[in-house]
Order: sequence, then structure tokens, then C-alpha cells
Amino acid sequence: MGKISPFAPKSMPRLPAIEGVRIAAAAAGLRYPGRIDLLLALFDPGTTVAGVLTNSKTASAPVDWCRARLAHGMARALVVNSGNANAFTGKRGKQAVTLTAEAAARAADCLEVDVYVASTGVIGEPLDAGKIVKQLGGLAREAKADAYADAARAIMTTDTFPKLATRKAEIDGVPVTINGIAKGAGMIAPDMATLLVFLFTDAAIEPRALRASLDPAVDNTFNAVTIDGDTSTSDTLLIFATGRATSRGAPRIVDWDDLRLGGFRLALAEVMHDLALQVVKDGEGLTKFVSVKVTGAESKRAARLIAKSIANSPLVKTAIAGEDPNWGRIVAAVGKAGEAADRDRLAIWFGDILVAKDGEVAPSYAEKDGAAYMRGPEIAITVDVGVGKEAATVWTCDLTKDYIAINADYRS
Amino acid sequence: MGKISPFAPKSMPRLPAIEGVRIAAAAAGLRYPGRIDLLLALFDPGTTVAGVLTNSKTASAPVDWCRARLAHGMARALVVNSGNANAFTGKRGKQAVTLTAEAAARAADCLEVDVYVASTGVIGEPLDAGKIVKQLGGLAREAKADAYADAARAIMTTDTFPKLATRKAEIDGVPVTINGIAKGAGMIAPDMATLLVFLFTDAAIEPRALRASLDPAVDNTFNAVTIDGDTSTSDTLLIFATGRATSRGAPRIVDWDDLRLGGFRLALAEVMHDLALQVVKDGEGLTKFVSVKVTGAESKRAARLIAKSIANSPLVKTAIAGEDPNWGRIVAAVGKAGEAADRDRLAIWFGDILVAKDGEVAPSYAEKDGAAYMRGPEIAITVDVGVGKEAATVWTCDLTKDYIAINADYRS
Repeated sequence: MGKISPFAPKSMPRLPAIEGVRIAAAAAGLRYPGRIDLLLALFDPGTTVAGVLTNSKTASAPVDWCRARLAHGMARALVVNSGNANAFTGKRGKQAVTLTAEAAARAADCLEVDVYVASTGVIGEPLDAGKIVKQLGGLAREAKADAYADAARAIMTTDTFPKLATRKAEIDGVPVTINGIAKGAGMIAPDMATLLVFLFTDAAIEPRALRASLDPAVDNTFNAVTIDGDTSTSDTLLIFATGRATSRGAPRIVDWDDLRLGGFRLALAEVMHDLALQVVKDGEGLTKFVSVKVTGAESKRAARLIAKSIANSPLVKTAIAGEDPNWGRIVAAVGKAGEAADRDRLAIWFGDILVAKDGEVAPSYAEKDGAAYMRGPEIAITVDVGVGKEAATVWTCDLTKDYIAINADYRS
Repeated sequence: MGKISPFAPKSMPRLPAIEGVRIAAAAAGLRYPGRIDLLLALFDPGTTVAGVLTNSKTASAPVDWCRARLAHGMARALVVNSGNANAFTGKRGKQAVTLTAEAAARAADCLEVDVYVASTGVIGEPLDAGKIVKQLGGLAREAKADAYADAARAIMTTDTFPKLATRKAEIDGVPVTINGIAKGAGMIAPDMATLLVFLFTDAAIEPRALRASLDPAVDNTFNAVTIDGDTSTSDTLLIFATGRATSRGAPRIVDWDDLRLGGFRLALAEVMHDLALQVVKDGEGLTKFVSVKVTGAESKRAARLIAKSIANSPLVKTAIAGEDPNWGRIVAAVGKAGEAADRDRLAIWFGDILVAKDGEVAPSYAEKDGAAYMRGPEIAITVDVGVGKEAATVWTCDLTKDYIAINADYRS
């Protein structure tokens, strides 16, 4: 799908095996013949699961399926396809999920209730579950412990590079691993999980404690990135914990506030931060990676909303694409956020360059310095809104002609 | 500024004189030498005024000035400049407005409190009021009754054609006229007045009744159009009523619910509707004019929010630019609006073509029909969300590479 993002990592991280997880991927021909588009992950008995799903009122059939099954919190298999989102597909969509889950349960030798399904791609076209069903038996036989690179590739749509991350942590002195894969690029917005993210660990954590570990990490990572302000029908983030680290002496964590989870939570947040920034760095058509930090806000929520108002403003994003230090558009975006801001105490920085303070251009600011800064590939915007003590950071990219080209031509 | 919108009217409407209004325009050299960028309108004593101003928390100095003066509701002069928004200009911005108002008061032989000021253009650059001040005396002397075309031209920024509209109405059997000019193109969003609009009438209406006449009309016109979801620091809509129709027997209307205002209100809504659609039809870089109608919503507000979610979705707008009947993105935009919608009862039409019903693609729908429809210049999208009886329409345009080009290069 066109040229690779200039922010793609120079080399892919190699993800270690995680005991209790086996993975296989295949080309099921769901949209493009020969393209790897189907992922099966198998989990040992006893694996727990937690997740965050899209808030969309028109959520896809797979999202409905996962939401219903997350309540019991156990998992044996995950099936993910790209190429077709199985969203807005009515009764046939529901049937396609059921057929897929039945086949995965047979392949994994488990109950259907332990199967999780996610789909990404075009909305509104019937998904031919038969193409998936006939692959699952073979995939289950081939599944192996170190196939994360294939897995990350299988879930890509307009992504220009696969997104992988891994971290180690200790729980009560016993090392555990967290692996993650993600898919993003289009339709990334900060309302929610807003993309596909799958996390795997050998830690032993009960579903409720696992879920509680997700929330703060999601809030500061995937909910803090935005490409175009759009939210998908299919956003799914799932974490699977096989518990196999218990064989090496790791405790089974039951309570969400168990202090022994501290290091794990930190590592989980790091994996998610890493993946979230990879998603932004593969924003459709981007030429600039942009961070927007808002300080001096009344509340964390207000800071986040103002930062998003700036990060989602087409006028700010096009100015950045044009390497134009047009800070006036930042002022306008602060104003339209509707949150408390003191126009006459507002201050703006590009990187370390003070652009404006006390509600007007800074005496020390020279347009040529701003212009030189904007020519760099990574743009850090800081805005102090002058009314409080709270801060938040949001990550985004610029809005370019290539974004239009990619999205005007996606289906055709 | 580049090529003229394909939706520009074939010929400009000729606006009749309105008794009690005189207008002049000039090139004050505020941004581009030789470009007409300054408007002075003079009103006879007794002229009332009402307005709607931006909700932006970083409103411009002229907006602050107007807000403070609208309370007393009388007007003798209006000064508008393009090329510089005098926004985020701190104390100097306030001084520039004061200097401008003082000079206009001298030129119009009135009090400063009766002078209204609006500015549009670049944000954050100091406005050189001296360039305006030195023109106002001459403009007052030249001002004449039929200079609306010049007026509409003087307030343009990235607009590709001047926007004018006129209607007649009767109040108690006496004919009155409403003239309007507007400027839009960039930064048009539906939060508010969201652009510059100036309306002039010879009707005699007290300020409070005049204000009450504005609200419903604004709601269904300027608050129902959107180009890019951005809201300006400078949005200003003002209506001036000279009351000179009393010399022909028109009554002076005091109460907002006076039934004799019915025809006037209708005509006012028509002028504003006409101008609002002209603004959309001059959306930056547009190739398609798009209406989005949402029916079956829980409330009028919900219908409007869902329609705006569709109309503001970059993915919907780029699909339209690409002539791609990608109705899946409409489903996603309905979902992210957060308002009640029944996914499994959702129906979508392109023009008269039923695309989807009962939550999936309609059996009668053929992609080639949708594709043929999308090749037309005017796209009408209707979505029934299947939960209630309320409806709303929003107007917008597509999002093209030219939008990016215009906005990436605006300042440089």
C-alpha cells in the first residue's frame, strides 16, 4: 500500500516466546489474494483475558461477541482477520462470527465461549466466514511460539509497517514478559481503544485485576493518540495472561490493588505507549510526528480536551504539513475547545522556542526560528492555558495531500 | 487566491439600496497591496443592532468590543477589515480596536459606543490601525447606498467569490428589504455564527426583538454548515435595522413575539440560508456540495450532532472527494457521534438510492448505482437512525488535496 512511513522503525523488535501462547497466520484471500490476513492465537488452559472495546453505537459483530464473552474472563483462542471489518453486516455478520468461533473452538479443542474474534477492514460488506473456517484447523497445527512478526503483519490494513513491542517485568521477583502487536493507521481517534491491539503475557492475573491494570495505561496511551478524529466500529484491545509464569514461582494475582503488580503495570504501560506511538508514526500520509502538551489547565480532562482540539484541528495539521509556524491556528483551536483558558495569559512554545506569552506574540520570537523548527520531522507544541495546574499530552501527525489520496482511493 | 469555486453563482445578485444605510470600501493595504480590504457602513440615527458572536475562549479583540456594545443595541457605524484578524494581539489589539472606533465615530459624527468593528484574516499579528484610521474620513464622504458588491468583496479572505443575498418581506403590509453579505471559506464550523455575516434592513425593530429573530435562523443556517470543524476566534453576525421603513408606514416592532414579524423572520431565514449555502459552496478546495440529513433521531439536537459527525468526518469527506460510495464510513460516523442510534434499524440513502436498511446493505443496492451517483457535483446523504421522530440537515463539502494545499500554504 504505497510508501512506508518515514517514521517506521529501522528494524523490527524480535518478540520472545511467551509460555502458553502459540500463533499462526495465513493468507485467507479475504480481500487481496496472497496477502497474509488471518491470525490464530491459541492459549493454554487457565488463560485470563481483559479488554477495552469501542464505544461506537454502530459497533461491529465481533465487538458485540467479545463484549459478551469478556464478562467471564477466560480465553483459549483469538481469531483476527484484516480485509473485512464484518461491521454493519446485520444477521449475516453475527452468523459469520459464530461460524468462526465454532471452527476456532474445534481447532483449539475448547468451548466457543473461550474464543475471541476481531475483524478490521472495509465496513458493510458481508464477510465470507468460510474462507476463515477452512484455515483454522491447519493454523492450529502450525501454531508456534515465536510467530509474532507474522501476527502483526496479518492484522495490517493501510499500515505501512507491522507494530510490535515487548517488555519484561518482575512480579514478586519472578520475571514475566509482555508482548504486544497493534494495527492502526486510519480511523485512529482518541475516544477509546480505537484500533486493534493484542497483548500477551505469561503473568498470572485474575480477569478483574487484569482489567484494572488496563484502564490507566489505555488512558495515557491509546486514548491520547489521534490521527483524524474518527473512531472505528471495530476498536478492540485485548490482553491475554496465560499464567504460565507460576511454574517459575510467580504468584497468581487476584486483587487489582496488589502492590506486587506495580512493575507489571509500568511495563504494560510502556508496551502500550510504544505501540501507540508506532500507530501515530504510521498515520496515513504523515510527514511530521507531533506531540501536543497542554499545561496550566483546570483539570486533567480539560487539558486533554484542549490538546485534542489542537491535535484534531485540520487547520493546525495542514499548517504543520506546510511547515508553517502558524501559531494563530493553535490559539483558535484552544478557543474552540470550550474549556477554561485565559486568552491573556496564554503561552505557546514550539520545542524550546517561546512563541507567545501573555496573550500575544513573544518579544523574543522571530518567525524565522519558528519556520526553521517546523522543518524538522518531530514537532513538539506546548501550550500553557494559564488557569490551573493540570497537564496532558496528546500525540498526532500532520494532515497531508497523501492522507486525502489514501482515503479517497481506499476502496476503489 | 487560485481558482474560483465550481459552485460560484453564475451572476452576482444586485442588492437594492436600503434607506438609512450607506457603504464604502477601500484598499487599505493591510495585507496585500491594492486589494480591497476595508469596509465602512454608516447608519442613520435610530438604527438598532443585534448579533451573534463566537463562543471561542480566545475571541478576538473586535469580538470583545462588539459583545460589550451589543447590550445597548444601537448602531451608527460598522468597520470591517480583512487581511488581519486582530486576534491574540493582546493590549495592542485592544488599542487598535479603540483607535478604529474613535476614527469611525469622528467620520460618522457619532459616539464610539455606536461603532461596531470586525476583523478577519491572520491571527496573532499586530493590526496597524493607522492604515484603517486614515481611510475612514474619505470613506464616510464617499459612502453610497448601492455599494454592497464592494462591501462583500472587502471582507473576503480565501473566499473565491463574494457572497450576497437579498429578500423582501412585509411588516403589517409595508414592504421592507433585507440585504446580507457574508465571508466564509476557511475555518467554517457549526459552533456558532462562525464567519462574518452582516445583514441590513430598513425595518423598525427594537434590539431585543431583533435578537430573538436571529436565533432560530442562525440555528438552521450558519450553525448547520461546516467545512472543517474548526471555529474561528472572530465569528461575527450582526444585523442592522435602520427603521426607515416607518416613513412608509411600517410599525416599530417592540416585542419579540409580535405576529407581524412572521414574514420578516421568514425572509431573514431565507437570506441567511442563501448566504450559508454560498459559504459552503465556497469551502476551501471543494469539488462536491454535500447535504447530510438525519431522520429518526431521539431529538433535534441528536439529529444535528449525528449529521455533524458525518459531515465532519475526514474519512467520509475524503471518500466523497474520491467519488467512492463508501457508506461504511457513514455508519462509523453515526456510531462515533455518541447519540442514540439503532445499528440494526439504520438506513442510508444516496439521493433516492436506498443503500442500506435494517443494519445491512439493501438487497436492491448495486455498487455501480452508488458510484454513478457519487460522480455528480451535489451529494445528498440521508440517514435514518431508527430510534425516534426528529430530523436535522447539515451542509458541507468534500475534503480534497486542494484544501490541504490552500491551508498548508496560507501564510507563507
